[in-house]
Amino acid sequence: MSWIKVVGTGPGRYQDMTVRAIRALRDCDVVIGYITYINLVRDLVKDKDIIYSGMRQETERCRKALELASLGKKVSLISGGDPGIYGMAGLLYELAKKNVDTDIEIIPGVSSVSAAASLLGAPLMTDFASISLSDHLTPWEAIAKRLEMAARADFVIALFNPKSRERKDNLPRALDIVLKYRCSSTPCGIVKNASREGEITLVTKLGDLLKYDIDMTTLIIIGNSSTFITGGKMVTPRGYVL
Amino acid sequence: MSWIKVVGTGPGRYQDMTVRAIRALRDCDVVIGYITYINLVRDLVKDKDIIYSGMRQETERCRKALELASLGKKVSLISGGDPGIYGMAGLLYELAKKNVDTDIEIIPGVSSVSAAASLLGAPLMTDFASISLSDHLTPWEAIAKRLEMAARADFVIALFNPKSRERKDNLPRALDIVLKYRCSSTPCGIVKNASREGEITLVTKLGDLLKYDIDMTTLIIIGNSSTFITGGKMVTPRGYVL
Repeated sequence: MSWIKVVGTGPGRYQDMTVRAIRALRDCDVVIGYITYINLVRDLVKDKDIIYSGMRQETERCRKALELASLGKKVSLISGGDPGIYGMAGLLYELAKKNVDTDIEIIPGVSSVSAAASLLGAPLMTDFASISLSDHLTPWEAIAKRLEMAARADFVIALFNPKSRERKDNLPRALDIVLKYRCSSTPCGIVKNASREGEITLVTKLGDLLKYDIDMTTLIIIGNSSTFITGGKMVTPRGYVL
Repeated sequence: MSWIKVVGTGPGRYQDMTVRAIRALRDCDVVIGYITYINLVRDLVKDKDIIYSGMRQETERCRKALELASLGKKVSLISGGDPGIYGMAGLLYELAKKNVDTDIEIIPGVSSVSAAASLLGAPLMTDFASISLSDHLTPWEAIAKRLEMAARADFVIALFNPKSRERKDNLPRALDIVLKYRCSSTPCGIVKNASREGEITLVTKLGDLLKYDIDMTTLIIIGNSSTFITGGKMVTPRGYVL
């Protein structure tokens, strides 16, 4: 029987993949993915047909997966981190509408926000908001409103896609919004390439964030009003009386 | 050398654990955890010393882990889901303050929100807010403000701990807030025991949520204004033009 499994490969290293993800890569006929994520699991899929494409070709990858499944293939569609968080799960369901018979399974993975948090210490711990600064698919006004509301309600804030070559201004604009409600000394974490080659983890303050080299592989976590730094780690207390 | 690894065991089944989590359970001397989570991994830790305790004994478990590590033991402190999301990571760092020499590693896992999303379809996909309705450690006023702001900014909303025996009113109060800004036909997902024994997955509407049996093992995901249902799955479009 044919199927499509949307395989959350986690932050990148074998050790952070789930057993189910590894099995799906082992049991499929074809692996489809963005080249960067394919390269991270290449050792596991040596004997498979591999179809990769570049950035922003998500639609093509999903269509290809549906086409191959309709031809009887078992397809692993790779999604870095967790496929359900800014990943490939949604787009596949949107495109699958007419292919009602395709057997689709989403295999959850360790999201990059969980990986980044584990390296920084324990910055999430309580209520948090996850916001992507990419205005490629979401209008900036919607992003700005989310930043404003998240800052006002004292959510810990995880910023995905903080910067790319074409979008250099969104991060400073976002920080201007957050700084209206949150102190410049608020602890912040910067994680580049969380839990994979090239990993850089750094704890700093909200007011100093722009001094650092931030790009599209970076995830930023902004603490809430209770977040503190201890032994180099960023910790948001849950509220236990100790 | 002694250590403490805070092991994210994911939603519950072996297949959703990461390789790193499995290795930590294999390599430790002692396993400490909440009885429910210990039972989920019992096959993996048969030959280990096991220390378990009941609900709300998180502080005692962390102190025990620090004490045993200081005596030279290798300790796996179990945290269901991801230890960084409403898990044990933060409390351990808070209590470890004085034990500066303890080697602590946080092993991220598949969070229950990722597991629930994977069963519902693809409800997160874009910006989301994660809110716990438990007012055991957070004052209700703070929770209410977060609900209000998250609803106003059209975040997808994941509700943790929606109900317990002592807190039956928080969920209806929360829904009253969200319904000020979001249509009663908004798709919602209810997942009980995500990806483990007793799993129940259900897609409904915001206005009908209270008709269902909801308890502390339930995670609720409330769609944003674009979320739709297709083939029984709950999908939040990311914004691709198809």
